[in-house]
Amino acid sequence: MRDFDERNITDAVIDSMAGTSDARLKTVMTSLVRHLHDFVRDVELSFDEWNQAIEFLTRTGQTCTDTRQEFILLSDTLGVSMLVDAINHRMPEGATETTVLGPFFVAAAPDLPSGADISDGMGGEPLEVSGTVCSADGVPLDDATVDVWQADDDGYYDVQQPERDSFVLRARFRTDREGRFAFTSIMPAFYPIPDDGPVGDMLQALGRHPNRPAHIHFMISAAGHETLITHLFDAESPYLDSDAVFGVKNSLIAQFARSERAGEQRRTLSYRFGLKPLPSQRP
Amino acid sequence: MRDFDERNITDAVIDSMAGTSDARLKTVMTSLVRHLHDFVRDVELSFDEWNQAIEFLTRTGQTCTDTRQEFILLSDTLGVSMLVDAINHRMPEGATETTVLGPFFVAAAPDLPSGADISDGMGGEPLEVSGTVCSADGVPLDDATVDVWQADDDGYYDVQQPERDSFVLRARFRTDREGRFAFTSIMPAFYPIPDDGPVGDMLQALGRHPNRPAHIHFMISAAGHETLITHLFDAESPYLDSDAVFGVKNSLIAQFARSERAGEQRRTLSYRFGLKPLPSQRP
Repeated sequence: MRDFDERNITDAVIDSMAGTSDARLKTVMTSLVRHLHDFVRDVELSFDEWNQAIEFLTRTGQTCTDTRQEFILLSDTLGVSMLVDAINHRMPEGATETTVLGPFFVAAAPDLPSGADISDGMGGEPLEVSGTVCSADGVPLDDATVDVWQADDDGYYDVQQPERDSFVLRARFRTDREGRFAFTSIMPAFYPIPDDGPVGDMLQALGRHPNRPAHIHFMISAAGHETLITHLFDAESPYLDSDAVFGVKNSLIAQFARSERAGEQRRTLSYRFGLKPLPSQRP
Repeated sequence: MRDFDERNITDAVIDSMAGTSDARLKTVMTSLVRHLHDFVRDVELSFDEWNQAIEFLTRTGQTCTDTRQEFILLSDTLGVSMLVDAINHRMPEGATETTVLGPFFVAAAPDLPSGADISDGMGGEPLEVSGTVCSADGVPLDDATVDVWQADDDGYYDVQQPERDSFVLRARFRTDREGRFAFTSIMPAFYPIPDDGPVGDMLQALGRHPNRPAHIHFMISAAGHETLITHLFDAESPYLDSDAVFGVKNSLIAQFARSERAGEQRRTLSYRFGLKPLPSQRP
């Protein structure tokens, strides 16, 4: 076909994919082309704006490294990550709500025994965390894997500190026969997502701040259940109402209770996680 | 705001940009977020597919170098470049139609006198090109700048050959008082767009070939007129009906006429370009 104009080019691109053997890929790409072209037509994108978009996407790709994923940040800050999350996690009663994975998860975190201190003696307000992992119907889950990771007292993750050569504030636990796990740590601080790259420039141009309220990440897997990816947010943190990545849900805001031990202020978090059974496990 | 779901998150992201001082940016980003979210909802994008998209975009950015622009290839192969072109170049009678810039333009091409040979003695079928540059109303344009660039007999541009340290099949001419310019060269071959990167993988997955019909690029600028970015396609080339970047228009298909001189086969191309006057220059 020749002589495409601003109306018929969309069908021409879709027709060019007629030979795709993967039906799902064809569905996804057909929808993508239709929405992408509709966007360009709706705003009548100029050549200069197209050029800026090409440069922005290129810079975003080139900002990615082994420890920084700028395209995930872009997806997060445009609400796409939480939208994908919402679509894929329509949760039953009793199951903990999900939120974004974020760019700081590391698959190779150290296995530690329940009760371990993950703070490596770092400064900060001491925190004791204890959790129970259950199926959505309330039955405790034995031998579930619990990945935890969090920012430090200054709002940084270990992987953001190139001078650090070991993991900290990051570990993997296993639940006991009652579904319990525990660890000690320090209070995480709220923090800005990395904003010295193209996504930071975008937020600034849009008049948005880059901050996320203080939280601890959890990824919990148990046999016969969907893996749960979520955070718990500190109920006293700023930015609960304007999280830069739209990740806050009321059910994930927890009280990090204050107490004193041996004259030292400390905080305590206790939470019961519910996992969604896989379809084949449902009654 | 908290507790976003797959419906209300779109307005939440748009509301977060309320502080944007640039009204045009706000319009563009609002439309982008709406269409991007609609796409994700329409196909119910899975977490695995989202991951593949993040990886694809990252690889696309990291494939870009000083001489390769993979995001332009992506835009070209999804028809976005030609759509932007069509929207921004609604041409009056008498003006030459436009097509994609492509990724091989170089701003620093050598200035050469009219009639120069741009082939540097390369093998290939000899070609003589002569052109006239006029305003859309037919008045010849003196001292217009004419950038030309083309692939060689094997379908490669100079910038794709790292061992080559000077430009070839690429030059800048100026029109004389009658709006004329001329040069000698060799016939360009049809060629695949660079298909050893993520865009090539995408085309393969979509059952598409990567080829473009044989063509010569022109970028023509003259005082008081819109810069014309176009190609002329060889009427005898394969792929005129399935250009990988959707760039073919019937008015841009030209006869590269055959003749013989001193026993040698040669081709001749003659074309009259019409430039669109800038708004302030219209009668």
